[in-house]
Amino acid sequence: MAETPQKLSIICFSGDFDKALAAMVMANGGRAFDYEVNLFFTFWGLNILKKRKGRRPGKGMFMQRMFNMMMGGRNNLPLSKFNFGGIGPELMKGIMKKKNIKDVDGMLQDAIGLGAKIYACDMAMNVMGVSKEDLIDEITDIVGVGTFIANAEGGQVLFI
Amino acid sequence: MAETPQKLSIICFSGDFDKALAAMVMANGGRAFDYEVNLFFTFWGLNILKKRKGRRPGKGMFMQRMFNMMMGGRNNLPLSKFNFGGIGPELMKGIMKKKNIKDVDGMLQDAIGLGAKIYACDMAMNVMGVSKEDLIDEITDIVGVGTFIANAEGGQVLFI
Amino acid sequence: MAETPQKLSIICFSGDFDKALAAMVMANGGRAFDYEVNLFFTFWGLNILKKRKGRRPGKGMFMQRMFNMMMGGRNNLPLSKFNFGGIGPELMKGIMKKKNIKDVDGMLQDAIGLGAKIYACDMAMNVMGVSKEDLIDEITDIVGVGTFIANAEGGQVLFI
Repeated sequence: MAETPQKLSIICFSGDFDKALAAMVMANGGRAFDYEVNLFFTFWGLNILKKRKGRRPGKGMFMQRMFNMMMGGRNNLPLSKFNFGGIGPELMKGIMKKKNIKDVDGMLQDAIGLGAKIYACDMAMNVMGVSKEDLIDEITDIVGVGTFIANAEGGQVLFI
Repeated sequence: MAETPQKLSIICFSGDFDKALAAMVMANGGRAFDYEVNLFFTFWGLNILKKRKGRRPGKGMFMQRMFNMMMGGRNNLPLSKFNFGGIGPELMKGIMKKKNIKDVDGMLQDAIGLGAKIYACDMAMNVMGVSKEDLIDEITDIVGVGTFIANAEGGQVLFI
Repeated sequence: MAETPQKLSIICFSGDFDKALAAMVMANGGRAFDYEVNLFFTFWGLNILKKRKGRRPGKGMFMQRMFNMMMGGRNNLPLSKFNFGGIGPELMKGIMKKKNIKDVDGMLQDAIGLGAKIYACDMAMNVMGVSKEDLIDEITDIVGVGTFIANAEGGQVLFI
């Protein structure tokens, strides 16, 4: 192991269940190795942070409301493949439950508990019509890409 | 900030509007922090560099012409989700315009103006039937993956 | 070139032909520069390592068998765009063959021959119903994310 502290920063761009799961597994794995872990949620990935379980029209203009509604909440994340209108992720969650693997939301809570930093992208919130109130309370900060780049400096970065 | 110059290299694989936008935001953000920024456009990402606004059949074999035509140009990039035959990106561009956020093309021009290096992948151009004349003039070079890896050495790398 | 050995670790998450191709090109490029190369195949990316050429129902529960069957084998990888029920990748393979570019399977064999390490993700195998016998024999090891993070430490990481 290196002597200097390691750092892992993940741009959580995708709102797909399987990709979000991969991001959370990496985040928790990084914390298990005592890496500094920064998660930057942007675009469809903002969905992972949404407070509401159901789908609701958001604020803002028509298209923003549409994006908000169609994306659903953090318990409605689709699979990137074989989604079948939401049946795919439900069946995958069923398998995971039987095998005692936490789902995205449980892993996100673990990551937060383990000290991962949770950042929401201000530009994407602006474009997608997502407000601070729509997101879970455990967010470290709402920041721009500059802050993310500064925080990620010198470490590994993933775009998921 | 570290004392040695930082470096950010992005493999722009996707031709989706939203992912291309994320890549350009990162590229400009990196330059704002005085990072060396290398952008390597490959596969569908070549589309972001296309000169022609409209769709046109390309050179080469049937499938290459098909790829070229279906991909459209840099002003026809689809959304990775909720594209709705091109309505999605148009509406997103409308929101961005109202909020004074530049679109992919404007951000690419900014990145070039700020000194980001623009590389097009020779292998992908070969497979997709894209020629040098199809691409914008501001390209730094057409290179193979080896040159990209050499340029990216010691820095952060993103695959988008 | 830096004096310390460089390292490139790739999380091969996608089972799409074009993305798998990009991952293999990077892996071989990395080895050509004498980088240590670690490939971690997870989720749909496990497909790239499947022994069987055809589609077959796997072991496990209904959904796992479904995932296994629908994903096909390493010679049935779809394109992320313009797949057209498998016609897209076949036509792309045709173009590549004419241009003497190896396809995913050939490049994977090259990477293995050049000394890239091939890891399969134990959690994903568990969730997707993939067993050791389903995968090619050249796998270095079946590991968890912790081993991958430890192996990747201090190097570049890509999520593809």
